[in-house]
Amino acid sequence: MIPNVLLRQAVERALLEDLHAGDLTTEITVIADTAAIGQALAKQRLVACGSQVFASVFYTVDPGLRVEELVPDGSWVEPGQALYRVEGAARSILMAERTALNFVQRMSGIASLTRRYVGELPVGSKTRIVDTRKTTPGLRAFERYAVRCGGAHNHRDSLGAGILIKDNHISAAGGIQAAVTRARELGPHLLRVEVEVESAAELEQALLAGADVIMLDNFELSGIEKAVATVKGRAAVEVSGGVTLERIRLLAEAGVDVISVGALTHSASAADISLELELLGS
Amino acid sequence: MIPNVLLRQAVERALLEDLHAGDLTTEITVIADTAAIGQALAKQRLVACGSQVFASVFYTVDPGLRVEELVPDGSWVEPGQALYRVEGAARSILMAERTALNFVQRMSGIASLTRRYVGELPVGSKTRIVDTRKTTPGLRAFERYAVRCGGAHNHRDSLGAGILIKDNHISAAGGIQAAVTRARELGPHLLRVEVEVESAAELEQALLAGADVIMLDNFELSGIEKAVATVKGRAAVEVSGGVTLERIRLLAEAGVDVISVGALTHSASAADISLELELLGS
Amino acid sequence: MIPNVLLRQAVERALLEDLHAGDLTTEITVIADTAAIGQALAKQRLVACGSQVFASVFYTVDPGLRVEELVPDGSWVEPGQALYRVEGAARSILMAERTALNFVQRMSGIASLTRRYVGELPVGSKTRIVDTRKTTPGLRAFERYAVRCGGAHNHRDSLGAGILIKDNHISAAGGIQAAVTRARELGPHLLRVEVEVESAAELEQALLAGADVIMLDNFELSGIEKAVATVKGRAAVEVSGGVTLERIRLLAEAGVDVISVGALTHSASAADISLELELLGS
Amino acid sequence: MIPNVLLRQAVERALLEDLHAGDLTTEITVIADTAAIGQALAKQRLVACGSQVFASVFYTVDPGLRVEELVPDGSWVEPGQALYRVEGAARSILMAERTALNFVQRMSGIASLTRRYVGELPVGSKTRIVDTRKTTPGLRAFERYAVRCGGAHNHRDSLGAGILIKDNHISAAGGIQAAVTRARELGPHLLRVEVEVESAAELEQALLAGADVIMLDNFELSGIEKAVATVKGRAAVEVSGGVTLERIRLLAEAGVDVISVGALTHSASAADISLELELLGS
Amino acid sequence: MIPNVLLRQAVERALLEDLHAGDLTTEITVIADTAAIGQALAKQRLVACGSQVFASVFYTVDPGLRVEELVPDGSWVEPGQALYRVEGAARSILMAERTALNFVQRMSGIASLTRRYVGELPVGSKTRIVDTRKTTPGLRAFERYAVRCGGAHNHRDSLGAGILIKDNHISAAGGIQAAVTRARELGPHLLRVEVEVESAAELEQALLAGADVIMLDNFELSGIEKAVATVKGRAAVEVSGGVTLERIRLLAEAGVDVISVGALTHSASAADISLELELLGS
Amino acid sequence: MIPNVLLRQAVERALLEDLHAGDLTTEITVIADTAAIGQALAKQRLVACGSQVFASVFYTVDPGLRVEELVPDGSWVEPGQALYRVEGAARSILMAERTALNFVQRMSGIASLTRRYVGELPVGSKTRIVDTRKTTPGLRAFERYAVRCGGAHNHRDSLGAGILIKDNHISAAGGIQAAVTRARELGPHLLRVEVEVESAAELEQALLAGADVIMLDNFELSGIEKAVATVKGRAAVEVSGGVTLERIRLLAEAGVDVISVGALTHSASAADISLELELLGS
Repeated sequence: MIPNVLLRQAVERALLEDLHAGDLTTEITVIADTAAIGQALAKQRLVACGSQVFASVFYTVDPGLRVEELVPDGSWVEPGQALYRVEGAARSILMAERTALNFVQRMSGIASLTRRYVGELPVGSKTRIVDTRKTTPGLRAFERYAVRCGGAHNHRDSLGAGILIKDNHISAAGGIQAAVTRARELGPHLLRVEVEVESAAELEQALLAGADVIMLDNFELSGIEKAVATVKGRAAVEVSGGVTLERIRLLAEAGVDVISVGALTHSASAADISLELELLGS
Repeated sequence: MIPNVLLRQAVERALLEDLHAGDLTTEITVIADTAAIGQALAKQRLVACGSQVFASVFYTVDPGLRVEELVPDGSWVEPGQALYRVEGAARSILMAERTALNFVQRMSGIASLTRRYVGELPVGSKTRIVDTRKTTPGLRAFERYAVRCGGAHNHRDSLGAGILIKDNHISAAGGIQAAVTRARELGPHLLRVEVEVESAAELEQALLAGADVIMLDNFELSGIEKAVATVKGRAAVEVSGGVTLERIRLLAEAGVDVISVGALTHSASAADISLELELLGS
Repeated sequence: MIPNVLLRQAVERALLEDLHAGDLTTEITVIADTAAIGQALAKQRLVACGSQVFASVFYTVDPGLRVEELVPDGSWVEPGQALYRVEGAARSILMAERTALNFVQRMSGIASLTRRYVGELPVGSKTRIVDTRKTTPGLRAFERYAVRCGGAHNHRDSLGAGILIKDNHISAAGGIQAAVTRARELGPHLLRVEVEVESAAELEQALLAGADVIMLDNFELSGIEKAVATVKGRAAVEVSGGVTLERIRLLAEAGVDVISVGALTHSASAADISLELELLGS
Repeated sequence: MIPNVLLRQAVERALLEDLHAGDLTTEITVIADTAAIGQALAKQRLVACGSQVFASVFYTVDPGLRVEELVPDGSWVEPGQALYRVEGAARSILMAERTALNFVQRMSGIASLTRRYVGELPVGSKTRIVDTRKTTPGLRAFERYAVRCGGAHNHRDSLGAGILIKDNHISAAGGIQAAVTRARELGPHLLRVEVEVESAAELEQALLAGADVIMLDNFELSGIEKAVATVKGRAAVEVSGGVTLERIRLLAEAGVDVISVGALTHSASAADISLELELLGS
Repeated sequence: MIPNVLLRQAVERALLEDLHAGDLTTEITVIADTAAIGQALAKQRLVACGSQVFASVFYTVDPGLRVEELVPDGSWVEPGQALYRVEGAARSILMAERTALNFVQRMSGIASLTRRYVGELPVGSKTRIVDTRKTTPGLRAFERYAVRCGGAHNHRDSLGAGILIKDNHISAAGGIQAAVTRARELGPHLLRVEVEVESAAELEQALLAGADVIMLDNFELSGIEKAVATVKGRAAVEVSGGVTLERIRLLAEAGVDVISVGALTHSASAADISLELELLGS
Repeated sequence: MIPNVLLRQAVERALLEDLHAGDLTTEITVIADTAAIGQALAKQRLVACGSQVFASVFYTVDPGLRVEELVPDGSWVEPGQALYRVEGAARSILMAERTALNFVQRMSGIASLTRRYVGELPVGSKTRIVDTRKTTPGLRAFERYAVRCGGAHNHRDSLGAGILIKDNHISAAGGIQAAVTRARELGPHLLRVEVEVESAAELEQALLAGADVIMLDNFELSGIEKAVATVKGRAAVEVSGGVTLERIRLLAEAGVDVISVGALTHSASAADISLELELLGS
C-alpha cells in the first residue's frame, strides 16, 4: 500500500512528462464523446503489482473513468490474462495509457524478479531476501512496495531509518567498537545497529562491540559458513554483494538470516503488459 | 545535456527520499570536519553517462564540495577506471553517495545497452535506432539523454511532440485516410505524421493518405522487406515491436529507416559503479 | 482541451495569489450559509474560451459548487449573453470570482483576437495562421489552447518540440547546409526542419539543403511573392515578423503556407466579461 | 523589487514550459564551448521594467553567465537603446532568450502603458492612478511591480490585504451601515474600509457609516463632481470602471483621489524588445 | 475559514512527514477491511479549533472516510467531550490520526490561550487584542485563524499587508515625518500607516506627521496613560511588548485601542486532545 | 544537522508567507544601498539552536549578505549575549528578520526546554529522554534536531521508521503475541519491535512474545517500579504519558530506559531572541 500523498505527486509528475503539450494525435482523431473499454493484459507470466497506481493515473487524467482491479497485487498472472479494466472516455484512456503502463510494467517487473529470488529459498527457510537503497530516483516507495508484493522484505527505507556502519564510518569513528558504542549512545532506541565487516577479524570485533546485525560484505561461501558458526545466533547475519539467483539456496542453507539483493530494484526488466482498447462509439 | 531546472527538481526529490530524516550513521560516526576524496569507479565495461547529475547531487547536499568529471558522457570506460572525483567534507560525500550512484548507474546502464544495439548496425548504415515513451516515470529527460549518449536517437518526447496515428485513432477517425487528413489539417506544421500499420493493405492506405512515416507494427522480416520495397522512399519506414539485439542487423539490411526499441529504457540493468572513498582526517 | 494536471497547478497558483490571507470582506459581510447564483456575462462581442478553467477555479475553492458551461469554447458570443453559470455558497463564489474571470478574460481575449486574424484569410485559403512562443510565462498551454479556439494553429510548443534554425544557429554551425545536415542527422525523425532566411540567397541555400519549411524573416511583400515562386512547393513557406491584421489577406494571396503572429498571445487585450451574482438568502 | 523566492518559482516554471525537452536546435547546431554576447534592445520607445527577472532567467539556465543591467527599471528608453547585456556560453543564452524576453516585454509593456496614464495627470495633481486585481494568473507580483515602475500605485494585493465592500457584500450584510460596522469590528486595524457605491443615495449612506474610501462605480463625470463636493474630504474618493486615457485629466480635475484602471494589467501589449546576439567563437 | 488551496498544501506536507515510508505497524497488524469509529476527545477544557483541517487530513489519506464536526470552531469544550467523529477503514484512521491531532491540538491551544487573554478585557471594552507575525513558519494562516476563533483580531498578515514604521525605518528615512510622508505618498491607499514610538517626544512627532496608528513600544503603564491622553483620539493607540495576561485589564482601562500579544502564537501549549478508536471488525 | 533540501523548502515556504507582497514599509523608507549590521541577541537564558536555518533565511532573501554563527547550536547562552551576526543590505536584513527569528526562537525554545528535562536526570543516569511524533506539522526535522541540541534523543521519525504496537493494533491483530509475531515476520530487520502495555498482565504477554521495547502507558510510579523488576533487562522499558519535569528524577531512579515527553515539541514556548540592527549608511 502506498500512501495517497506519495501516489498523487508521482502520478502528476509522470503525467506532466507525457501530457505537458496535450495528446495531439488523440485530440485530432478521436471526438470527445467516444467511449471505450480497455483491459491491461499480461503478455508474459508475471507477478502483478501496481493496481493502486494504475487507477490513480486514469483518475487523475479523468475522474469520470471507472477502473477495476481484476487481479490483486502479488498474484501470479498467466500470459493473456487481464489485470485491470478501465472504462469511459476513449480520449482520456488513450492519454493516460502509456503512463499507467510505465508504472505497472516496472512494478510488476520488480515483483516478478523478486518472486524468482524468493522461490529459490528452500521450503521452510527462515532466511529472508531484502532489497537495498539502490532504487530508481523518485520511485523508492513504489519499488519497495513491489519488492513486498514479490514476497521479499524491505531493508531500511532511508539513511534516517536504520543504522548501518560501513568501512568509512568505522575508520572515521576509530574502530568498530567506538562506532558501535556511539551508535548505541546516540541512535534512536527503536533501531538496531548493523555493522558491515570484511574479514573474520572484523566479525569478531563487531560481535564484541555488540552489533545487532552483521553484514558480510562480499564473503565467499566458505567464509560465510564460518561466520555463521562464529556468530552462533548472537547477532543476525546479512549477506550482501554479488548475490545471484543461483547462490540463494546455498546462502540460505548456510544459515544466513538476511540476503540483500540490489538487483531486485536496479536491474529488473519491465514486465510485458499492454492495454487492449475497444471503442464503443459515441 | 539536461536543462538545470529539470535537474534540480529531480535531484531534490531523490535526495529527499534518502535524507528526509538525515543520515543517522554518518552523523553519529563521522565528525563534522573530516575531509575525504571519493572516486566513482566502473566495476564493469560501460558507457559513462550522467556527470551533470552526479555533480548536481553532491552540490545540492553541500555547495562546498568539488566535483570533477574525469570521463565525458558517452565514452567507453573499462573496469577499474574512474569516472568522477569528489572532494570535501566526508559527511556530505557519504550522504550524497547512494543517490548520485543511483542516477549514474541507471543512466550508464541505458547508455551501455543502447551502444550495444547501435553496435549491431552495419558500418555506414543509415538506419537509426530510437527510444520510445516507455521510460521510467519522472526520469524521461534523463533516460532520453542516456539514449543519445549511447549513440541512438530519440523518438517523440511526449504526446504533444509528434503525431503517431495508431489502430484506435484510425478506427475512431473512420479510417487511415480520414485520420491523416485531419492530422494534416490540424497538427502543427513542424510535425511529421506517422501511421502505424498492421498489414500490407493498411500500408497502401497510409501511403495513399500521404503519411510521412510508416510504422510497421510487429511485422515479420519478409513482410518488412516487402514493405520497404512497396514504400520506395515515399515515406520513412519505422519498425517497432519485439526488436532484439539479434534482429538489428537484419532489419537494417532490410532497409528500414528507424528501429524503435522500448527495451533501451524499460529493461536496461544498472551499470555497476561504486564510490571509493579515502578519508583525509580533519 | 487542457490536461487536468496542468490545469490544477495553474489554478492553485492563481488562487493562492488572491486568497493566501483569505477574503476579508466576504468573510466579514456574508454569512456562511448564504446561497447564490452567478452568471458570467459577455460585456462585448467575443469568442468564448476557458470553460474548463472557469469550472476548475470554482471547484477548487469549493467542491460543493455547481458550474455549467452555457456556451462551448470557440463560439461567438454577443454582448449580454451568458457564458457560464455557477451556483452554491455565496462566499465561495465571491472568493473565486476574480481569479476565474482573470483566466477566461485573458483566454477569450486571445481567442477573439485570433478569430479576427483568421477572418482576414480569403475564403477557402489554405494559408494557416499560427502562434509563437511569445506567450505569458506560466500560461503557455492556456494560450495555445485559446489560439486554437480562435481558429488558428499552434507553432511548436517548446524548444524541444520542433527544429527552427535561425541566424545564430546558422553561423554557429558554419552555414545553412551544415546546420540542416546536422539537424537531419541528429533531430528526431518526427520533426520537420525549418530554416529562417533573410535574403533570396539564403533562401536558395535552404532549398538546396533540403529544409522542410522556410521562414521568411521580415520580408517585404514583393520579396515574399518571389520567394513563393522560387520555392514552388519544394518546402512550406512561413512568413514571420511585423504581421498586422491588414497584411493577412495579401500574404495569403501571395501563397504563403503559414503566417506566424506573436501578437495573438503577447498583445491581446482581455475580453470584457463580468460575473452577475444573485443572492438567494440562506 | 520582487522577493527572490517569488522570482525563483516563476522563473523555473516559465523555463520548464520552454525547455522541458531541451533546446533541440541549439544543441544540434551550436557546440558547447561557443561564447557569445547578447544585448536586449528596445525596438520602440518604452519604460524599461524587469531587469531582476531578466537576469534571473539567464542565471537559472546557467550560473556561469554574466548579466548586466544597462538601464534601471522605470527609465524611458528610446528605440535602439540597449537595456541589458548578457555574456557567456552561446548555448545557454539561446536557451534562455525567449523566456527572459517574454517576462520583460510583458513587464515593460505594462510599465509603458502605465506611464502614459500617469502622464495624463495635470502637473502637481494629487490624484493617484492605481492598478486592480485584474492581473495575469501567476504573475501578480510582477505586474504590480511593473505598475509601480510606470509611476502609478498599487491597489490591494489580494482579498486579504484590504476591505472593499461591493454590492453583493452590502446586500448580504443587510445594508451599507451594517457592512461597514461589521468591517470596523472585525477587520484588521491597519486596513481602511472602502465601500463601492452606485448612486448618490448610497454615497450618503457610506459617508454616514464612516467609510474611509468610497469607490464611485461607473459614475458619469457630473456625478463624480457632485460626489467629490458631497464628500468634502471626509473620505477618499476612488473612481473605477471604464477609465480611458482620455478621461484621466478630467477625473483628476474633478478632484478624485484615486483612479483605478484595470487596463494597466489586463490589456497592455507587450513592449517590443529583442535580443541581438554576437557569437564570439569558441 | 482557511482557503482550500492553503489547506491542501499544508496537509499534504504534514502527512508526508509521517507517512513517507508508510505506516509499518498498522499495515502489519491491521487487515485491510477492518472498520472503525474514532472520536477526538478533549482531555482538558479548551476552545475547539481546526475542524476543517481535521477533516482534510483524514480525507487526504482516504477519501472514503466520513468525518463529522461535533463542535463548531470557537466553542468552549469540557474535558471528555467529543469534538469530531471519523468512521471508515481502521487502517486509514490510524495512519492519519497523529497528523490530524497535531494540527488541532496546536490550533485549539492557540484559540484557548487567546480566549484567556480576551477574557481579561473588561466587559464592554473597545480594546482589541491582536496577534503578531511571530507565527510558526509554514502555519501562519492556521494560527491567525485560531486567534480569531479565540475571539481576538489579527494584525497585518504579512509585510505586504500593512505599513508599520519601526525605529530602523525611521532612522533610514531621516525621521518620523519623512518616513510617514513617504509612506503616505507611496503606500497603497487602503492601508493605514502605523508608527512605533519609544518616547513621548517621538509620539508627538508621529502625531504631527499624521500617523493613523501609534505603537507604544515597551512603555510602562504611566507612560501609556499619558500617551492616550496626548493622542486624544487623533490616532489609534497600540501597545506592544511584554504583555502578560495580568496586564490586559490595566491596559484596556488605560484606554488603548489595540494590544498586540506575540505569545498567542509563539508560546501557546498544545491543547490535550486524543482520538479514541473503536474497532468494528471487518 | 538538517539536510539542505529540507532546509530550502521550509525556508522558502516561510518567506513566502511574509513576503508574498514584498515588504512595503522597508521598500518605502529604506533606500536600496543602505548597509547595516544585525546581531541576534538572547533576551533570556537559553540553549541556542538553529544557526543553519538562520543563515539560510538571510541567504535566500539575499545571497549577498554575510551571516556568522557566534555560538554553536546546543550552547547555553546568557541574556544579552549575541548568537548570530548578519551584515549587508539593510533592506534585505529587515525583510528576512522576522522569518529567521521565528525559526530560531522556536528551535531554541525546544532546545532550552529539553535541556531542563535532561538536567533533571541524576548524574550518570543511563535513562534517556526522547521526543514523540507530536511535532508541529511541517517542522518535524527542525524540532527533532532541536531536541538533540537540547541533549535528548529522538524517538522514531515517522510511522515508517519504527514499529510501535499500540492497543488498537493489538486488538486488530488478535492479541499481543500475534501482533509481535507478525511484526517479526514482516517488519524490516533493522527495526526493533515495541509494544505499548496498559497492565502488568499485558507486560507479561509482551515479554513472552519477545518485544524488544515495552512502553508503559500512563503507569503510576509503583507500577513502573514493579514493571522494571519484572522485565529484568529482557527488554528496554519506556515510560510515556503525563511526564512532567518533576517526575523525571523519580522515573530515572526507577530504572526505566526511556522517557518520552510530548511536551518537548508540542508545548515549548519560543525563546526570546531579538535582532539589534545598526544602520551603516549608504
